[in-house]
Amino acid sequence: MTYSIAILGASGYTGAELIRLIADHPDMTITALGANSKAGLSIAQVFPHLRHLTLPTLVTIDQIDFAKIDLCFCALPHKTSQEVIAKLPQDLKIVDLSADFRLRDPAAYEQWYGNPHAAIDHQAEAVYGLTEFYRDEITAARLVAGTGCNAATGQFMVRPLITAGVIDLDEIILDLKCAVSGAGRSLKENLLHAELSEGYHAYAVGGTHRHLGEFDQEFSAVAGRPVKVQFTPHLVPANRGILATGYVKGDAQAIHAALAACYASEPFIEVLPFGEAPSTRHVRGSNFCHIGVVADRLPGRAIVVGALDNLTKGSSGQALQNANLMLGIQETTGLMMAPLFP
Amino acid sequence: MTYSIAILGASGYTGAELIRLIADHPDMTITALGANSKAGLSIAQVFPHLRHLTLPTLVTIDQIDFAKIDLCFCALPHKTSQEVIAKLPQDLKIVDLSADFRLRDPAAYEQWYGNPHAAIDHQAEAVYGLTEFYRDEITAARLVAGTGCNAATGQFMVRPLITAGVIDLDEIILDLKCAVSGAGRSLKENLLHAELSEGYHAYAVGGTHRHLGEFDQEFSAVAGRPVKVQFTPHLVPANRGILATGYVKGDAQAIHAALAACYASEPFIEVLPFGEAPSTRHVRGSNFCHIGVVADRLPGRAIVVGALDNLTKGSSGQALQNANLMLGIQETTGLMMAPLFP
Amino acid sequence: MTYSIAILGASGYTGAELIRLIADHPDMTITALGANSKAGLSIAQVFPHLRHLTLPTLVTIDQIDFAKIDLCFCALPHKTSQEVIAKLPQDLKIVDLSADFRLRDPAAYEQWYGNPHAAIDHQAEAVYGLTEFYRDEITAARLVAGTGCNAATGQFMVRPLITAGVIDLDEIILDLKCAVSGAGRSLKENLLHAELSEGYHAYAVGGTHRHLGEFDQEFSAVAGRPVKVQFTPHLVPANRGILATGYVKGDAQAIHAALAACYASEPFIEVLPFGEAPSTRHVRGSNFCHIGVVADRLPGRAIVVGALDNLTKGSSGQALQNANLMLGIQETTGLMMAPLFP
Amino acid sequence: MTYSIAILGASGYTGAELIRLIADHPDMTITALGANSKAGLSIAQVFPHLRHLTLPTLVTIDQIDFAKIDLCFCALPHKTSQEVIAKLPQDLKIVDLSADFRLRDPAAYEQWYGNPHAAIDHQAEAVYGLTEFYRDEITAARLVAGTGCNAATGQFMVRPLITAGVIDLDEIILDLKCAVSGAGRSLKENLLHAELSEGYHAYAVGGTHRHLGEFDQEFSAVAGRPVKVQFTPHLVPANRGILATGYVKGDAQAIHAALAACYASEPFIEVLPFGEAPSTRHVRGSNFCHIGVVADRLPGRAIVVGALDNLTKGSSGQALQNANLMLGIQETTGLMMAPLFP
Repeated sequence: MTYSIAILGASGYTGAELIRLIADHPDMTITALGANSKAGLSIAQVFPHLRHLTLPTLVTIDQIDFAKIDLCFCALPHKTSQEVIAKLPQDLKIVDLSADFRLRDPAAYEQWYGNPHAAIDHQAEAVYGLTEFYRDEITAARLVAGTGCNAATGQFMVRPLITAGVIDLDEIILDLKCAVSGAGRSLKENLLHAELSEGYHAYAVGGTHRHLGEFDQEFSAVAGRPVKVQFTPHLVPANRGILATGYVKGDAQAIHAALAACYASEPFIEVLPFGEAPSTRHVRGSNFCHIGVVADRLPGRAIVVGALDNLTKGSSGQALQNANLMLGIQETTGLMMAPLFP
Repeated sequence: MTYSIAILGASGYTGAELIRLIADHPDMTITALGANSKAGLSIAQVFPHLRHLTLPTLVTIDQIDFAKIDLCFCALPHKTSQEVIAKLPQDLKIVDLSADFRLRDPAAYEQWYGNPHAAIDHQAEAVYGLTEFYRDEITAARLVAGTGCNAATGQFMVRPLITAGVIDLDEIILDLKCAVSGAGRSLKENLLHAELSEGYHAYAVGGTHRHLGEFDQEFSAVAGRPVKVQFTPHLVPANRGILATGYVKGDAQAIHAALAACYASEPFIEVLPFGEAPSTRHVRGSNFCHIGVVADRLPGRAIVVGALDNLTKGSSGQALQNANLMLGIQETTGLMMAPLFP
Repeated sequence: MTYSIAILGASGYTGAELIRLIADHPDMTITALGANSKAGLSIAQVFPHLRHLTLPTLVTIDQIDFAKIDLCFCALPHKTSQEVIAKLPQDLKIVDLSADFRLRDPAAYEQWYGNPHAAIDHQAEAVYGLTEFYRDEITAARLVAGTGCNAATGQFMVRPLITAGVIDLDEIILDLKCAVSGAGRSLKENLLHAELSEGYHAYAVGGTHRHLGEFDQEFSAVAGRPVKVQFTPHLVPANRGILATGYVKGDAQAIHAALAACYASEPFIEVLPFGEAPSTRHVRGSNFCHIGVVADRLPGRAIVVGALDNLTKGSSGQALQNANLMLGIQETTGLMMAPLFP
Repeated sequence: MTYSIAILGASGYTGAELIRLIADHPDMTITALGANSKAGLSIAQVFPHLRHLTLPTLVTIDQIDFAKIDLCFCALPHKTSQEVIAKLPQDLKIVDLSADFRLRDPAAYEQWYGNPHAAIDHQAEAVYGLTEFYRDEITAARLVAGTGCNAATGQFMVRPLITAGVIDLDEIILDLKCAVSGAGRSLKENLLHAELSEGYHAYAVGGTHRHLGEFDQEFSAVAGRPVKVQFTPHLVPANRGILATGYVKGDAQAIHAALAACYASEPFIEVLPFGEAPSTRHVRGSNFCHIGVVADRLPGRAIVVGALDNLTKGSSGQALQNANLMLGIQETTGLMMAPLFP
């Protein structure tokens, strides 16, 4: 059976990445592409790299007949997403890629995003989309909230360590290096090539990045007590990739063992041999996440390094993985392509 | 049926690209990976981005049992390739990615490559691997010589114009901009990031680039008279991509019509609407070639611009396309993935 | 004596480059920085790389007391520039970096820029700012119109060849590769890092780039008859640099000799030994222009390649060179710094 | 008075950077350029970006008449440097840029570099070249050992905090991101553009980077007790720059105050306003170091971020600063140029 798919927000980078992935998917067909600001254009006009595909013209969201849609991806900006989803059919399966339904506590949402939540009922039913840890709930869900790309990276590295009880919960530092596509296609001065190329910097320093809301929620839930990490993202001159360097206290071999055990049968998470560290260049364009563990020279301390592609495993690949589960398709379908290197 | 594939030269960039493509191919299995200098290593050690794949350990070429191989890709340096191929079984289907069997005239080979040819018998049976123009010969061939990546780009742009008789054959200029992976993984000072990033330059200026041997051979054959083009390659700070800007004399509309007609049913060659020009970012990682035609403000002159990925359509993608034909597989199998953007 | 300098448009890239250069200038002091949209900010807020300098706060243009200014640089957008300059004191020395006063013929201005000229009187008195060819006029000028960065590059390569009569005037092709800072600091989708990095393309193909207005004006004036070149600019993923590849018909040795003779005593134009071609990496951040000549394999054809930094020799460095002349300062003062490599 | 300068190792990146800086220096003249492997070549052949300079031809070291040299920069590989310096005149002023004389304890040298020291006498007289903290000793020194570029960055951030007693000495983490020119011009696969561009990774993870020898020596000396930090360097796709993110425990305001007080009168160290973080793009090509402090959301923790150009303040700029002191020249001479942005 072929499922009929709609993508809202098709003119952004995560929208394009969804199209790239779904175009090769044997069990899905793209039936509708929503992009209000570019309605009426063909995909070749918005994304010339997709010009070889036969796809519907971009339309406004209200032009889409959702009765014919089996599953809808929402790749809209946060805040817009909750408003749109509130108006969609209540039985439509939805994978939301925005930040709108990630935080279960409306107060936490308001704290991190600055506005009251406008679709609290839907927030209640939303399942957090970190596939490897919410697989059953996602399979049964109507609405899945895709995780932040940074939040996914850090959780892949740290969740199993909390569960296994092998690290000090009060001494977790995540120093993260993100490529520029994570900031989307928005027109901001600091995203210009002339600003970014040959330069890099820390931003949201001191614990102000919104993905901390997800870390706090998830790590605390896993630990059964409040866990607050330190998290500093950096913007580096590359298009795709997240590399997170985690500084933790615990036995490095036990840490490696906990990760290896947790991901032993996971198709997309590769735990490297002890002592090796990953690189973004080796996951680019793929749905894989590589994790390495190295013992520090200081006893009782370890470095955990994780790498993934923010647009794929960190966003649109994760979304497709979740959609596969929701539709009863083999989870890995359309997602096993090798990374693009060089 | 699943065909058994060997790749010689598996530790270079075109070797890695072959593995990336064939890993997803439904009708091929990689049975042997040859890489003399890295024999004994796993693919994960040589190319960590392929670590998720179950692949044979790298071996020396003489460790491979070619009796079990249906088709062998040779991604070896030129000169080495002819020596290796001369010793392989004489009935083994081979797609060679080196320069060794591209030039039918041994004297031309010696002129451009500086050494006498060591496998002239095989050169005689080799078919030039520009799929769209040698499809029947390739289907029947035992040994196919993959084209130069620059040579492929220029031919896609110019061959139909010669055939259609719409341009002045004595006034063809190809100004080509190539990304760095075209130079391979060799350790040369001018390929260092610190040398190349933020800098670009022309090289082999004045008609000394070896791919001119292919242009001369092919354009003259098509025209039925000697055709010699001007060709200046440039190295730009990017990893993948060739963009060639062709300056020709003729009617721009007729030129566009000739290209559109020639490629109307080709799955991988996209002729853009008249007046549009392509970009390397829109073909990266794919087997597509985009071609655009624009009329110059000077009457009777036109600009033809072609773009492709040097590692895919310019090399390993082309090789797989040819292998599909040689094995009786649907030509596009394993090659329809969308480009990676951004 | 120290001259008092104002810079209008101080928050753009050419403004920042002027500040960088003048900060080290022994005979100039920056007295006023105009930037209407960022008035009230310090230079450290707008350009943190200049934070070590003691500079005036940015102000609106009408807050500047021009009576105290010896020379004013206008680094404003075209069209705005002519409106601002029309209102400045009529005896104020001005170096304009915009396109507004480059074209002597108001009809040509309107043709290329799409609007009637609003300060035709000033256009009449403006001197074209290509220093090496208008040195005497610039020394005596009140208003100098900085050239286009592409236009400067092409003219350095071709003007001496027209003067010397060594090339066919009807067969000149300039294929130019420009780095992104040439497009300024404006917020456009195609200037985003995620769009541009790892991708490159031709733009304004077919003779529609505005700098052709300058080529037409200047080459025709030098030749004493209409000369129209073909010109295709390309945008490459680098921040600074222009590399232009010129295809001309003539004797390569004569062409090299004409260039060498023309620039023998020029401090900033380096003609490379015959057969060598320049690179943008070797002029970055400097006021130098490197030019090379290579004979093509086709008799009677030559390739001329020029390289300069679009922000320095192509814009702000040229502007300072002109200002030095206008103020009676040694022409090279503040401009002899070596390029930054790597 | 003009001092006569020799540069040994003139064909590497730090050698080129020394030439760039000294070419503009009013009190120094380059008299000899040593580069054994490229002896006989002109500087234009080795570094075309310096072709406008009138400089001596490269020679072997034993061709240099050191009697005429006032000060010699050694920009040679470590181990080679100690062998060469042992043979130079014993009264020659030397600034060594290698790692050979940084570690005062020969056992520590052997531990980190793997070979016994071959010039222990000279090691005894060498002064550690971190100008801002060894100014008096450097002024009086004959032999100054330039610091590691990473080591300089970390020390600028942390030394004043140890002195002021405002941080926990057992909880210092330095996560450092280095551009590729720090690895020099050597031919290694991981320095190729095709490997590095669009990819980044951690290396020497777990406390194995040699610059830890300097951190251990210096931080322990300042503290008067052993201090061992955690240090993870990362290689990012840029040519110049070091950005170090320091995680420390202490009061953020006190930390900022300690840094501000320490560097209040330093010409090259800029402490940003509290709460701001620096960027490599704002120090590129300059001798400035920018340091910012931000309070973490977790009480009692702070993030200190430092940025400098590895080739300038991290290496050749520091060397010139030290040479100025050793020759009695104003310390800032030739070093006040603004950074190059964009």
